[in-house]
Amino acid sequence: MEKGDCLHRLMEALRCLPGVGPRSAQRMAFHLLQHDRSGGRHLAACLDEALEKIGRCQSCRTLTESELCSLCCDPARDRSRLCVVETPADVLAIHQATVFKGLYFVLHGHLSPLDGVGPEDLGLDLLQQRLQAGEIRELILATNSTVEGEATAHYLAELARRHSVSVSRIAHGVPVGGELEYLDANTLAYAFDGRREV
Amino acid sequence: MEKGDCLHRLMEALRCLPGVGPRSAQRMAFHLLQHDRSGGRHLAACLDEALEKIGRCQSCRTLTESELCSLCCDPARDRSRLCVVETPADVLAIHQATVFKGLYFVLHGHLSPLDGVGPEDLGLDLLQQRLQAGEIRELILATNSTVEGEATAHYLAELARRHSVSVSRIAHGVPVGGELEYLDANTLAYAFDGRREV
Repeated sequence: MEKGDCLHRLMEALRCLPGVGPRSAQRMAFHLLQHDRSGGRHLAACLDEALEKIGRCQSCRTLTESELCSLCCDPARDRSRLCVVETPADVLAIHQATVFKGLYFVLHGHLSPLDGVGPEDLGLDLLQQRLQAGEIRELILATNSTVEGEATAHYLAELARRHSVSVSRIAHGVPVGGELEYLDANTLAYAFDGRREV
Repeated sequence: MEKGDCLHRLMEALRCLPGVGPRSAQRMAFHLLQHDRSGGRHLAACLDEALEKIGRCQSCRTLTESELCSLCCDPARDRSRLCVVETPADVLAIHQATVFKGLYFVLHGHLSPLDGVGPEDLGLDLLQQRLQAGEIRELILATNSTVEGEATAHYLAELARRHSVSVSRIAHGVPVGGELEYLDANTLAYAFDGRREV
């Protein structure tokens, strides 16, 4: 087992997967070679197919095989509400957890001037065109609750106001099932401030 | 994002990797598609190459690209000592941790009559031929310290004795850095029994 052989190349290549270090990569390589060769071949084929076919939706920038994703194509969805998220995984999460019937817009990141990520990298020219077109009445900001996510939400709120589109931010508060005692002060302050009559 | 599209096929395919559930598979698929497409392509190519090229060494049954693995080919190694292990990963582990200069024999499992795994599935006919050939003077049993591993070691010891080959078992005892207080009674009894003069 020399460093340059294809077993070691496979172990190295597996480390491109998030959360996979040298030990897991070795375990994965041996598992596939010893116990699941057909699974390994299928994985290689699916990887090639996905990387070949999957691009971005021309309307909402999420990942899709077609020019437009299935949500943007769906005539039953409410085109007057647009929910802005950072990643395609967020689209999936909101789609599965909520009853939101509008459309999405995927930034693929957040504003980060220090890393050279500006509005044009997040497709905000495309978003501006859609705000200008007048179909959108509510812009829902569902970026992460991190410093960069909040800054991005702030920028988007300004953009929406310039086009006279009403804008909302998803709520901060106590996670469902969470205990107040262990919550950070910031979140608790938001939760208290955002209390609703019952 | 429908169930039948190639993004979902990729997520499903990733679950053939050990320790990867639905959430990690989703995270891996999105990571590759958004941030590391070249890594993904490289992984697919390495998988195909490894599954195509890697087979078993005709002498020791470990994984290799050639007819004989690099260890079996190496004229510098001591052909009179043969270390029997359950998996190719064990070969790697012993090779990296010890100064053992002999050869290995990989069972690819252990005896397990209930699962239909008998001596012929572990290549014991091949091992018997090598014991018969007379080159081997010591058989080192490094199967796992599980019930099946011990049973397999017992079977192999009988086999070696029939061919008048001396046989040894790797030691049980306190793991290095381990505390006696937390050790199970069985291991402690073995460690005490196997004490050596200092």
